[in-house]
Amino acid sequence: MGCVRVVVVAGGIGGARFLRGVRAAIPDAEVTALVNTGDDLTVHGMRVCPDLDTVMYTLGDGIDRARGWGRDGESWRVKDELAAYGADPAWFGLGDLDLATHLIRTRMLDAGYPLSAVTEALCARWRPGVRLLPMSDDRVETHVLVDAEPGPADAPRTGGGRRAIHFQEWWVRHRATLPAYGFVQVGLEAAKPAAGVLDALATADAILLAPSNPVVSIGTVLAVPGIRDAVRAAPGQVVGLSPIVAGAPVRGMADACLTAIGVATTAEAVGRRYGSRAWADGVLDGWLVDTADAAARVPGVRVEAVPLLMTDEAATTAMARAALTLAGV
Amino acid sequence: MGCVRVVVVAGGIGGARFLRGVRAAIPDAEVTALVNTGDDLTVHGMRVCPDLDTVMYTLGDGIDRARGWGRDGESWRVKDELAAYGADPAWFGLGDLDLATHLIRTRMLDAGYPLSAVTEALCARWRPGVRLLPMSDDRVETHVLVDAEPGPADAPRTGGGRRAIHFQEWWVRHRATLPAYGFVQVGLEAAKPAAGVLDALATADAILLAPSNPVVSIGTVLAVPGIRDAVRAAPGQVVGLSPIVAGAPVRGMADACLTAIGVATTAEAVGRRYGSRAWADGVLDGWLVDTADAAARVPGVRVEAVPLLMTDEAATTAMARAALTLAGV
Repeated sequence: MGCVRVVVVAGGIGGARFLRGVRAAIPDAEVTALVNTGDDLTVHGMRVCPDLDTVMYTLGDGIDRARGWGRDGESWRVKDELAAYGADPAWFGLGDLDLATHLIRTRMLDAGYPLSAVTEALCARWRPGVRLLPMSDDRVETHVLVDAEPGPADAPRTGGGRRAIHFQEWWVRHRATLPAYGFVQVGLEAAKPAAGVLDALATADAILLAPSNPVVSIGTVLAVPGIRDAVRAAPGQVVGLSPIVAGAPVRGMADACLTAIGVATTAEAVGRRYGSRAWADGVLDGWLVDTADAAARVPGVRVEAVPLLMTDEAATTAMARAALTLAGV
Repeated sequence: MGCVRVVVVAGGIGGARFLRGVRAAIPDAEVTALVNTGDDLTVHGMRVCPDLDTVMYTLGDGIDRARGWGRDGESWRVKDELAAYGADPAWFGLGDLDLATHLIRTRMLDAGYPLSAVTEALCARWRPGVRLLPMSDDRVETHVLVDAEPGPADAPRTGGGRRAIHFQEWWVRHRATLPAYGFVQVGLEAAKPAAGVLDALATADAILLAPSNPVVSIGTVLAVPGIRDAVRAAPGQVVGLSPIVAGAPVRGMADACLTAIGVATTAEAVGRRYGSRAWADGVLDGWLVDTADAAARVPGVRVEAVPLLMTDEAATTAMARAALTLAGV
């Protein structure tokens, strides 16, 4: 038999850590990380891909491990200078080391290279040990519907208009505290899967959905026209890992995203949202939940419970091994 | 009578220092710095204007005074990161603080603002106390003709082909040590004086040519179609200051540029190259040389000798005062 092939659908921090576990759990496998680019944005004229960079830096040992994003030993001199000029946005965490990545990416994109080729070029330095694929070479940017004029938190809601702000503005600047009424993915309908994505899904022995944000990370990847169908049609087993443990997100503010789309913040509700491959639109064969959520049931899906906290490398590797086992690899 | 108006045609470091002297010599005057942009270049996707920035930082008290260019307290983290990626060019001195200026400039240029408006916006922070005008809003980039395949310095010249490299590559990377056979100013013929330039020249009580590089700084400004004629037709007196003292450039490598165009490295030869306004194509009424060059004669031009070393603020102010006096202001 040939080399085992695994595709991991991933967002940023959680997806990156999980990918380290997969790499450790099955070192000889050919792993493809299919990464969300819906958080991408252009700041100060530079194209920034937060999730791709987090995965690249994490697997390339360049990440700030304590913070989970950005470069180890980072500084913020350019950001402070831009603020001294009064340049917007001042809230985005633009590190000096990180900035070099954005400059090279922007220059290559401007020269006509697709994002997948740019990512490959950047990875020539970082050698992440997995193949990094953006979900799409086309721009898809997630926006969040919020109140047009947010008043004080205790003010009566006036029922006035809504406005859409970039996901990063909602997430980073407002720490997901502005009530969200939905997500609008600009560019999604016209987006195509990046070169290599459909082929990776069609030849994978297993497809894992990392314990990333189910709405704005995994949900966005699956919403790229063609990707959900390719996952549903894939010959390999599809196993997801719950990012919700005991009714709360393990990290990040996924609860705010789930609330916005009317899904409860439970491992069971997220599993049901993904749904069984046996039924229309579902993508799961297996659903891995934390031992705290062992009672979760998802119709048509094998649910298993193991510890799902990525507290250290060993715990993360064990999670990855459990997911691969559930997928029959 | 109204406010005295002075236009100073300037390059980078020497021009910036001289402008400090002019500002100190005649604090109530309305001073316009007409700055060379022929050294401009695009590095890592960012538009860099070395001379404009040197003047802006110098007059805005943000310059590294010892080095003469770039920001005080500068660091080079982004540059080192770009080099770690193997991105070209690695030889350009791209500081972290400086980079914020380039990012804002590039973003505004991409949005359609002309360079003169961008410069004005940047100066809102730096308050240089003079009006900074680029010579043109159009791109003009100086290239240098060098040997196609430079061999060892003592190798016989083969008489082979020539190639053109960007002025900055010749100046910064090769420290002007590659023999230069001439300069090609790409974009010059189609360039127009920036908004405000012709008006400033037409209403100036005096026009001073700073002791900047006479070939690639002052020479380039004067070569923008319309500027030389406007200087020649100006009602104010035109006085130049020699950048050559006792047969050597005060700073920089102006001798290499003069040699390339067949002009001797003497105060007299440079004055003659500028020429008298009384004759075809000349631009000078007065020529200020160092006391070491008191014997210099330029037909049709009043030559005066004063100390021309900008050793400190007082010496520079005295130089500016002498130039203004020679111009009758």
